[in-house]
Amino acid sequence: MRIDVLTLFPAMLDGFLSESMLGRAREAKLLEINVRNTRDWATDKHKTTDDRPFGGGAGMLMKCEPLFAAVEELQTPGCRRIYLTPDGAPFTTAKAEELSKQQHLIFVSGHYEGIDQRVRDAIIDEEISIGDYVLTNGTLAAAVVIDALARFIPGVLGEEKSLTSESFTRNLLDFPNYTRPAVYRGMSVPEVLLQGDHGKIEKWRHAQQLAKTAKIRPDLLNKQP
Amino acid sequence: MRIDVLTLFPAMLDGFLSESMLGRAREAKLLEINVRNTRDWATDKHKTTDDRPFGGGAGMLMKCEPLFAAVEELQTPGCRRIYLTPDGAPFTTAKAEELSKQQHLIFVSGHYEGIDQRVRDAIIDEEISIGDYVLTNGTLAAAVVIDALARFIPGVLGEEKSLTSESFTRNLLDFPNYTRPAVYRGMSVPEVLLQGDHGKIEKWRHAQQLAKTAKIRPDLLNKQP
Repeated sequence: MRIDVLTLFPAMLDGFLSESMLGRAREAKLLEINVRNTRDWATDKHKTTDDRPFGGGAGMLMKCEPLFAAVEELQTPGCRRIYLTPDGAPFTTAKAEELSKQQHLIFVSGHYEGIDQRVRDAIIDEEISIGDYVLTNGTLAAAVVIDALARFIPGVLGEEKSLTSESFTRNLLDFPNYTRPAVYRGMSVPEVLLQGDHGKIEKWRHAQQLAKTAKIRPDLLNKQP
Repeated sequence: MRIDVLTLFPAMLDGFLSESMLGRAREAKLLEINVRNTRDWATDKHKTTDDRPFGGGAGMLMKCEPLFAAVEELQTPGCRRIYLTPDGAPFTTAKAEELSKQQHLIFVSGHYEGIDQRVRDAIIDEEISIGDYVLTNGTLAAAVVIDALARFIPGVLGEEKSLTSESFTRNLLDFPNYTRPAVYRGMSVPEVLLQGDHGKIEKWRHAQQLAKTAKIRPDLLNKQP
């Protein structure tokens, strides 16, 4: 899979792309990620990428020209062009899995007040929001989407983690987990986990998931399959 | 404000912390951010931070000892100790603003299957989720929360952006924005934005916000103040 990230702050992703699982995935050629500076496609001598909004309002807006030129140079037939914005559809695990099956993704990261609407209308296929909050720019949001989708690319997680028994595979929060020692500072691991009865453990974990979800995220219970 | 991030991958945040607004905010001493390697608090000779979960299951779990030792060394009276997890309460702009007023935040980033529940019970004040998806570890989630809250620290945004007219200040998505040229590849900016009647522009923008929110995020309309 090939991923291009268009941003005004390419260095923001330096550590993210070289560390942890993503660094290993890139080294193993499971994933090609190119971070591109949108400013490289600006054509005037000051390399301008932003301008004031028509109709007034605070802040600056990213202009059409550099973004059209950049996307048109990078795009390949069938690629998915994604704009990261709090206005987008909420990002989910299901979306991460869907994106992980694409051949080529282009992430457009906004900055300032956002980008000219004509970019969104003409050369963006999909708008994604990572949550109901505002970031200084979309570059971190692109990193979040890439991290979440990379987990679904075969070989990326290795043996370290299973995808099947975690939060959101069934729209339930996770059960409490414990490791050694069995007693730490007077706090004991629940008996049921120490007794080795796997049927009982399974039941206890499911009950814990339901209770925690009802308490913290009752909205998820309506999404039960 | 002081922020400590506890992670097994401190280098993941290198670029994020030195670039863009956050880099400038740190240089201007508006914000002190220390990234700490949880492994530095592991005491055995292999610097072990994880172990298998009691009761079985895939993957490894972060152990009590290093996390207790780290948090207890770093914490200050009145500080807020936050664990990033998809099990937490959904992160919002309101939460970002609330956190921006604290003196000292400690972010605990999980890895593998998560962390021992006794850490969460005993030394975590608050659990936050940045969205309904799973990341390879919590370090990026910490970066997202830090970026969003930094915007509310006076001086961080400078003149570049106003906080008042953007997505989520009124639980509405943003209106479409346009900048020069007025016509680009045959696509025109809406007439109303070029005519300079600010009452009309205000009305048009609000109508656009309502229409877009109804289409993409009808759930937000129930949260209208």
